[in-house]
Amino acid sequence: MIRQPTFTLATLSERFGLTLSGDGKLAIRGVATLAGAAHGQISFLANPRYRKDLLSTQASAVVLPAADAAAAPCAVLISSNAYASFARIAALFDHDSGVVAGIHPTAVIDSSAQVDASASIGPGVCIGARSQVGAGAVVGAGCVIGEDCAIGNDSHLVARVTLVKRVRVGTHCLIHPGAVLGADGFGLAMDQGRWLKVPQLGGVVLGDDCEIGANTTIDRGALDDTVLEDDVRIDNQVQIGHNVRIGAHTAIAGCAAVAGSAKIGRFCLIAGGAGIVGHIEICDRVTVTAMSLVTHSITQAGSYSSGVPLQETRDWRRNAARFRHLDELARRVKTIHNNENTE
Amino acid sequence: MIRQPTFTLATLSERFGLTLSGDGKLAIRGVATLAGAAHGQISFLANPRYRKDLLSTQASAVVLPAADAAAAPCAVLISSNAYASFARIAALFDHDSGVVAGIHPTAVIDSSAQVDASASIGPGVCIGARSQVGAGAVVGAGCVIGEDCAIGNDSHLVARVTLVKRVRVGTHCLIHPGAVLGADGFGLAMDQGRWLKVPQLGGVVLGDDCEIGANTTIDRGALDDTVLEDDVRIDNQVQIGHNVRIGAHTAIAGCAAVAGSAKIGRFCLIAGGAGIVGHIEICDRVTVTAMSLVTHSITQAGSYSSGVPLQETRDWRRNAARFRHLDELARRVKTIHNNENTE
Amino acid sequence: MIRQPTFTLATLSERFGLTLSGDGKLAIRGVATLAGAAHGQISFLANPRYRKDLLSTQASAVVLPAADAAAAPCAVLISSNAYASFARIAALFDHDSGVVAGIHPTAVIDSSAQVDASASIGPGVCIGARSQVGAGAVVGAGCVIGEDCAIGNDSHLVARVTLVKRVRVGTHCLIHPGAVLGADGFGLAMDQGRWLKVPQLGGVVLGDDCEIGANTTIDRGALDDTVLEDDVRIDNQVQIGHNVRIGAHTAIAGCAAVAGSAKIGRFCLIAGGAGIVGHIEICDRVTVTAMSLVTHSITQAGSYSSGVPLQETRDWRRNAARFRHLDELARRVKTIHNNENTE
Repeated sequence: MIRQPTFTLATLSERFGLTLSGDGKLAIRGVATLAGAAHGQISFLANPRYRKDLLSTQASAVVLPAADAAAAPCAVLISSNAYASFARIAALFDHDSGVVAGIHPTAVIDSSAQVDASASIGPGVCIGARSQVGAGAVVGAGCVIGEDCAIGNDSHLVARVTLVKRVRVGTHCLIHPGAVLGADGFGLAMDQGRWLKVPQLGGVVLGDDCEIGANTTIDRGALDDTVLEDDVRIDNQVQIGHNVRIGAHTAIAGCAAVAGSAKIGRFCLIAGGAGIVGHIEICDRVTVTAMSLVTHSITQAGSYSSGVPLQETRDWRRNAARFRHLDELARRVKTIHNNENTE
Repeated sequence: MIRQPTFTLATLSERFGLTLSGDGKLAIRGVATLAGAAHGQISFLANPRYRKDLLSTQASAVVLPAADAAAAPCAVLISSNAYASFARIAALFDHDSGVVAGIHPTAVIDSSAQVDASASIGPGVCIGARSQVGAGAVVGAGCVIGEDCAIGNDSHLVARVTLVKRVRVGTHCLIHPGAVLGADGFGLAMDQGRWLKVPQLGGVVLGDDCEIGANTTIDRGALDDTVLEDDVRIDNQVQIGHNVRIGAHTAIAGCAAVAGSAKIGRFCLIAGGAGIVGHIEICDRVTVTAMSLVTHSITQAGSYSSGVPLQETRDWRRNAARFRHLDELARRVKTIHNNENTE
Repeated sequence: MIRQPTFTLATLSERFGLTLSGDGKLAIRGVATLAGAAHGQISFLANPRYRKDLLSTQASAVVLPAADAAAAPCAVLISSNAYASFARIAALFDHDSGVVAGIHPTAVIDSSAQVDASASIGPGVCIGARSQVGAGAVVGAGCVIGEDCAIGNDSHLVARVTLVKRVRVGTHCLIHPGAVLGADGFGLAMDQGRWLKVPQLGGVVLGDDCEIGANTTIDRGALDDTVLEDDVRIDNQVQIGHNVRIGAHTAIAGCAAVAGSAKIGRFCLIAGGAGIVGHIEICDRVTVTAMSLVTHSITQAGSYSSGVPLQETRDWRRNAARFRHLDELARRVKTIHNNENTE
């Protein structure tokens, strides 16, 4: 059993600078959704989609924007950024796993590798030649760290992460299980009817505070490095090709793919399943919506989309069939229009 | 060498309740496709696409629907569900790997974990604090089970599966290599120009008889759990976001992605590469065709699609260019139509 | 520290049959991009997109086509296939990791498995019953090789690769971390309201010189094998369903998916995120562009596409809404056209 901590509402209000309306002595023992909360728990309202759940919540308190405060049936903590404030409160209830410093006896560490004494190296971990693990870093069970890698202070590889070769991870990064960083980029030259492998001599560089999702892959560069700047957040099953460069604070959702040598700016939001072809450039503050394909450089901030809307298959089929002749249709309309205007 | 078992046609007919037409004493020593079968093997016909192969099959017997029986050049076992009947017969020829109960000496088991004496724990497995493995369960080589997980009786984690934290797996589940269940959901709040991580305090709950494909990822919930009900079948490389809920008997094919807090009903079929955005609801018995994107809730059973059909690139390019001005085109047609009707 | 080798331009010219223009005594100590090269490095120009970087390059020499030679500000090696020639030169600077023959003491090898004395088996590797590892093969840290597998001479499984069962890998193959070959195909029969698993009795066969990307999955066949012919190159996170057959020299880019029983010809190029539905056939020398979906067999070589172009979301939304009524629009245009021609 794990003991849950308790905080009064007054403590939370003070610690996070939130305006309290209600009984400050209320004891908060946990966090929950509006719909799932019980007495003693605190919830939040950030997405208007869940406003209806506020009215019936059993939570003892809710973190919300000022405009929604009056509708709450309980105590409130008012925040101009309710989601962020709630995240800070929730962190109080997120107990750390029992990580202990030191190298597990089953780990296999090359004699030329350097592991800080305060780092934690889990069972079955392998660390290759000339690699380094910084102070407070955690390398979880089953991770394989190849040659010439570096893991910055306080970074955390959860479990079964692979850093293949020449991967430098900044400080305070979090890498989830199954992620593979530094595998060969997909470099091939066709040569007399056979593929010739192009050596991948670069590495991968991650800035500080990056997060890399489960089973995500980030290839190392062919000549230069593949680079993710600080605070880049990548979800699960994302593919980042060789020599890609991603600007600070950009977030990429699950199953997106970025092809080789693409450059993505800062503060971009790439939604799930989106694709970005190689050798193009996307400027800062661009949003790409789910499953859209970016085939050209984008030079202006804003939101971009492709695809067609979902329909019942029988309706869709009729429309899709017409797409095959859309150019013809447009030409016919132009002809009709011209005829009309010359009549 | 592995000894293959042998069954007479009469035995198969009787055991699976199939109508036999032909020599019941025929010995069946294996299963094969219609095109690949040799004497002594049994095949099946379920997909009409392969009807042409029936005529020339070398199989000694074929499982098929009554309507196709007359066309078979060999003995037949008639079934109203030929594919299911064949699956049952094929299972007779699928020898189990040599799994032995007990804990491999290289496994690392936390002292607070509970492993049933009849379970099999493979080489290099790690099991974390307070986790449990049920009777007859198999945890294959290289699996990492974190803290507070539970694996139900007779469930099978093939190899290199990761259960990160608070993952409860029902009975008779099958989880393929590289799958990662219970990693952090992708919860981020933008806060003064930097991402703030939202703690992921929930877990993952799998019902009984679920199957999870290779390299599939299922994130744990932010507050509530991510839930898959009984008999949910997930193919390879599928991404399931935090707090998703999937109804019983739903099947999701490879590379599909379901974003956070989406709810999918029972008996749904989500085809390969399909995407489902977050916070929406799909009712029971919905089919989504390959690579379609579901952006709104679906309240009526049926089949749904998006996308446009494949064409030769040069034709496609002309049509796709017109799509960029489709609204303009539609307006022009409306104007022409109105002019015509008012003339 | 790793010592970098040095070659004179004359040596490179001679060894790779390239026409030299410039000082043959120049010492080349490394390779780099045109933009990133420093004195003593050699670069290349193959993609016209980077022609502007040629003029200002600091490289001591550049590999390029004859037509670009005059524009180079430095020595040149002229090649009719500059990318392939550069790949060969770059390989001179790609030092091998320190692989040593033999079985690491932490590896767990079944007594019936056969490992060539010249093979290298890394830490934590498991090799199952009746599996074989050929001469010079490398099985990196954390790989799990199941039963009845074979790894050909000089093939290299980088790390954490899983061969589940009945997987035969040819010679000189390269398989990247997280790849899972030979997992169960997604075979299910609906039977009285529940899914019934269809046994997957086939295997996976890889020809020689294949490359399989990180976290890619290739399922084993249901009855026959899943087959990749020689020199097939697969990028990261690709999903290959059971009983797929891929012809020699075909390349498949990241996140593409091929559904069960599809057949792909030789010398095909399947771009990133593309989908190929099951049970269809694609002939030789077909290109499928990024994120396109192939739903029917292709019998003619050429390039094929689907999808619609990216636009700003507000423009896209208007056009996408019209797509829902495209059939109606086409009918209306037809009516107008007919009226006009009969007037």
